[in-house]
Amino acid sequence: MPRFFSLAKSALLFHLLIMLSACATQGKPALDVAPQQNHGFTAFQNSADEWWNIPYPRSFDPAALTRRQDWIKVSGKSFVTDSGKPFIFRGVSIADPGKLGMQNQWRKELFEEINRWGANTIRVPIHPFAWRKHGSEWYLARLDEAVLWANSLDMYLIIDWHSMGNLQSEMFQHVMYETTRLETAEFWRHVALRYKNIPTVAVYEIFNEPTHDYIGTGPLSLGKASWEGWRELLETYIDLIYAYNKKAIPLVAGHNWGYDLTPIAKAPVRREGVAYAIHPYPQKAKPQNPTRENFFALWEKTWGYVADTYPVIATELGWMRADDYGAHEPAINNDGTYGPNIMEFMKRRDISYTTWVFDPDWSPRLIEDWNYTPSEQGKFFRQEMLEAKEREKK
Amino acid sequence: MPRFFSLAKSALLFHLLIMLSACATQGKPALDVAPQQNHGFTAFQNSADEWWNIPYPRSFDPAALTRRQDWIKVSGKSFVTDSGKPFIFRGVSIADPGKLGMQNQWRKELFEEINRWGANTIRVPIHPFAWRKHGSEWYLARLDEAVLWANSLDMYLIIDWHSMGNLQSEMFQHVMYETTRLETAEFWRHVALRYKNIPTVAVYEIFNEPTHDYIGTGPLSLGKASWEGWRELLETYIDLIYAYNKKAIPLVAGHNWGYDLTPIAKAPVRREGVAYAIHPYPQKAKPQNPTRENFFALWEKTWGYVADTYPVIATELGWMRADDYGAHEPAINNDGTYGPNIMEFMKRRDISYTTWVFDPDWSPRLIEDWNYTPSEQGKFFRQEMLEAKEREKK
Amino acid sequence: MPRFFSLAKSALLFHLLIMLSACATQGKPALDVAPQQNHGFTAFQNSADEWWNIPYPRSFDPAALTRRQDWIKVSGKSFVTDSGKPFIFRGVSIADPGKLGMQNQWRKELFEEINRWGANTIRVPIHPFAWRKHGSEWYLARLDEAVLWANSLDMYLIIDWHSMGNLQSEMFQHVMYETTRLETAEFWRHVALRYKNIPTVAVYEIFNEPTHDYIGTGPLSLGKASWEGWRELLETYIDLIYAYNKKAIPLVAGHNWGYDLTPIAKAPVRREGVAYAIHPYPQKAKPQNPTRENFFALWEKTWGYVADTYPVIATELGWMRADDYGAHEPAINNDGTYGPNIMEFMKRRDISYTTWVFDPDWSPRLIEDWNYTPSEQGKFFRQEMLEAKEREKK
Repeated sequence: MPRFFSLAKSALLFHLLIMLSACATQGKPALDVAPQQNHGFTAFQNSADEWWNIPYPRSFDPAALTRRQDWIKVSGKSFVTDSGKPFIFRGVSIADPGKLGMQNQWRKELFEEINRWGANTIRVPIHPFAWRKHGSEWYLARLDEAVLWANSLDMYLIIDWHSMGNLQSEMFQHVMYETTRLETAEFWRHVALRYKNIPTVAVYEIFNEPTHDYIGTGPLSLGKASWEGWRELLETYIDLIYAYNKKAIPLVAGHNWGYDLTPIAKAPVRREGVAYAIHPYPQKAKPQNPTRENFFALWEKTWGYVADTYPVIATELGWMRADDYGAHEPAINNDGTYGPNIMEFMKRRDISYTTWVFDPDWSPRLIEDWNYTPSEQGKFFRQEMLEAKEREKK
Repeated sequence: MPRFFSLAKSALLFHLLIMLSACATQGKPALDVAPQQNHGFTAFQNSADEWWNIPYPRSFDPAALTRRQDWIKVSGKSFVTDSGKPFIFRGVSIADPGKLGMQNQWRKELFEEINRWGANTIRVPIHPFAWRKHGSEWYLARLDEAVLWANSLDMYLIIDWHSMGNLQSEMFQHVMYETTRLETAEFWRHVALRYKNIPTVAVYEIFNEPTHDYIGTGPLSLGKASWEGWRELLETYIDLIYAYNKKAIPLVAGHNWGYDLTPIAKAPVRREGVAYAIHPYPQKAKPQNPTRENFFALWEKTWGYVADTYPVIATELGWMRADDYGAHEPAINNDGTYGPNIMEFMKRRDISYTTWVFDPDWSPRLIEDWNYTPSEQGKFFRQEMLEAKEREKK
Repeated sequence: MPRFFSLAKSALLFHLLIMLSACATQGKPALDVAPQQNHGFTAFQNSADEWWNIPYPRSFDPAALTRRQDWIKVSGKSFVTDSGKPFIFRGVSIADPGKLGMQNQWRKELFEEINRWGANTIRVPIHPFAWRKHGSEWYLARLDEAVLWANSLDMYLIIDWHSMGNLQSEMFQHVMYETTRLETAEFWRHVALRYKNIPTVAVYEIFNEPTHDYIGTGPLSLGKASWEGWRELLETYIDLIYAYNKKAIPLVAGHNWGYDLTPIAKAPVRREGVAYAIHPYPQKAKPQNPTRENFFALWEKTWGYVADTYPVIATELGWMRADDYGAHEPAINNDGTYGPNIMEFMKRRDISYTTWVFDPDWSPRLIEDWNYTPSEQGKFFRQEMLEAKEREKK
């Protein structure tokens, strides 16, 4: 049957569009029917068996937002607001909404507490396994809630497709990370269509941690991979996101679990408006003599230099001591030097960050329980964010 | 375990083949066991758990047909019968057999009514979603019925893999159209094996409406695509179809939802015996001054010229008025000029056609209810088909 | 969340690893937790819903073996033991463990009977359909049992991914053989990780019978294929297997259902340590005049010559008479010449073999019932294996 691709362009048919929109949005006031996205004839199913009348996806209606928020965009090596004011993302990663929902911890209070810690940003990791388990409709409904909560607090969201492994070969480190190139494309297509009008959803972190090494088994133990191949795949996703939302900030990561940005020097991603992600956990750099200067030198070489040219966000960082809850490589730091060092290094370069993780069950954790009791790193990063907020007020 | 690949070639074993055929066809007189398609040892399952004895697909037995029908083939820019007589497909698209079955409208009466309208052809659209829902066995059983009904009325079938979107990227316009390159290949492999001996199944319409534009979002919003890439994929399917049935007529479509055949001038499909499909709905051509001549000029440029070299079938066309049931772009025509114009243009070029759609629920519709009351376009196209039938009798 | 990729390398954390290993191996003494394969924090699921705590795959613990076995490796055109002694695999294929399990025939007695026939090797075919039906955990548990049984009898295993068709196009000869390039990679990744420390699992037969001909329909009726494309795919799997287990012997097959090795002369697989498989059923060679010499000449040309350079294993061979149970091409031999001829030809070239099939239901069968009554070929091959065993004792 024919498609409906330029319905809105036709003045003649404009009344039809309005009618269909009204019908399809019934009972869903926060959701706007994207133009031209309904079947011409019925726009709803008489029964669930009517596969030909399954509703089309819709876009989130910006009129449902309670607060005007600036769009954040890339300008040279910086993020800036609509009015050209520099902006730095500072915040935390929460756990997956699927995990939080199971535990009745998916609620506005979580966002409010994070706001009280001085954060202006929340990173929302979505694991492919959980995305399939709950379905896209369930997850987009949760993200709609996140948008309303974050917007009311003037905070921004980073949406993170939380896989770990080799998307080129489609082999991953664990069943929770398993996805495909196509599913990843469809995820971003859904997200970009849904939030194309919403400044709150500022950053699209395309793929959490690329690696072709299965838990230290060795290079290519998750199949063939190369920076050039990975870059080309990233560009495919960027093109797709931009086709729906030219205001999105695509965020891209390098191999070694999002640590290695050395290829950027010679082979950057060939698209405008892109930012780079890093996950600089304490044990990623391994200087022979672990002085501050030696850490700085290794960080500079591997990813710090990128901040001279492009905006950078450390979308994961954090530490615990070896006898802390959930201690594991590469996040161990026992001498307390990691936090101050990494923050000093990043502040000099205006690097944004969201620390891992505002959840008592995952690690390294920022809170010890659901009363939000801060851990050692929790206290440190809360202080950092609150001070930064104070500085910016002046 | 070994395979059974040249059983029929072996005179020694011919009695075995006969024995197995007899066994496997028991209770299914209309179905012929294709040679060499059974396991050597049991040929049936003692229980459904015996996955190693799941029966092989079988071919439709031409002895089950009640009427001798000519094979239709491509000869230069024309379709011709076995005896070299020119042939033009004229008919209608029905709805998907899955949809019709749900409504108890899948029956011989439907075919008989279409025959009374003067049609010699029925196009059967099969949506990938429905194909998976019902399974290949269910659909092939329905197509077997369609073959028997059409054959008894001396009509032909066009089998249409009714997807809409970008098969190169595997992204589609709606969930009902979602498929993969592999599923599409397997669909055609099943169809070609099943109907390789059956002239009634004349045309294999490989992919209904190729597009990389998600409902007017813009070019490549359904991922990467190119005519050259699409052509190569089409050739893969043609080769596969021909491996089973060299008498099939593969029918191929261009981008812009099966409207754009401009690349054929320089880069036609590199296979013999192929025909081209078009879906020239009224609003696809948009002349500034909508005169008959201006429409003709645009049609000629975009697809009419192809009919000088290759057989062409308009497998979808039709119109409704803006206040008709299910009105939507690009099928609106309010001044009544579209029908006469397109028929005049196509008749001059011997272009075949099946109009959309002989169903009261989908649109633009040819019938208003299940009493087969013709709509405005229904009356027009019925008259056209009846007159053509009369002309051909003389 | 971060990964755990070099946990074992960190002396500081070694106690943690031990603790986690102890925890995860509880109640599974035969299974070793592969280093670094647990989540840092819990290592077990509080409920099945905790997808983020699904346990990581583990490696089989060699300490669970009751007998020291040599590793078999490739040395020039031969297989040799650790100590450099030549080794020839002689044995049988059993049916799929999934099929045997359904019939309560999956048990140590089966292995003991095969051992009494003089075999030193059992080939275990795993059909992709059954792998998905039972799941990887079920199959690996069965293979663990096979390892313990075979090891206790000083026998070796050939693991066979028992598909038949075209993995390049992902089209296959029957539903039981359907798989994908990715599933095949994941199968071998699981097997190589599980048995990397186990000499009993000697041979990894990557893909049973490559063919692009659907049961004699003709070349490419299962889609595009070429030796070069197939070789590249095989090399991908070999690289993946070696990333986990450098001691594995990858075994590769050519087209024509594992019969045609002619391309090896000019285009061998470009990896070290590989062996070649053949399935030389009686009717694969079709000399005009069926003399011993004429068979030998055809065999030499198609695959015999490969044994001058590489180790070769005939992982399937066997015959039945035209009126025997399950008779079918290409396994028919009525004059009794096939067995002696093929064995003479292979013995001259030190070609290893596992005959098809030690099961009364599949064919050509070596046993007629579950009392293990030998068939005609069963008696012949049992005698061959027992004589070879005697020769080797001297």
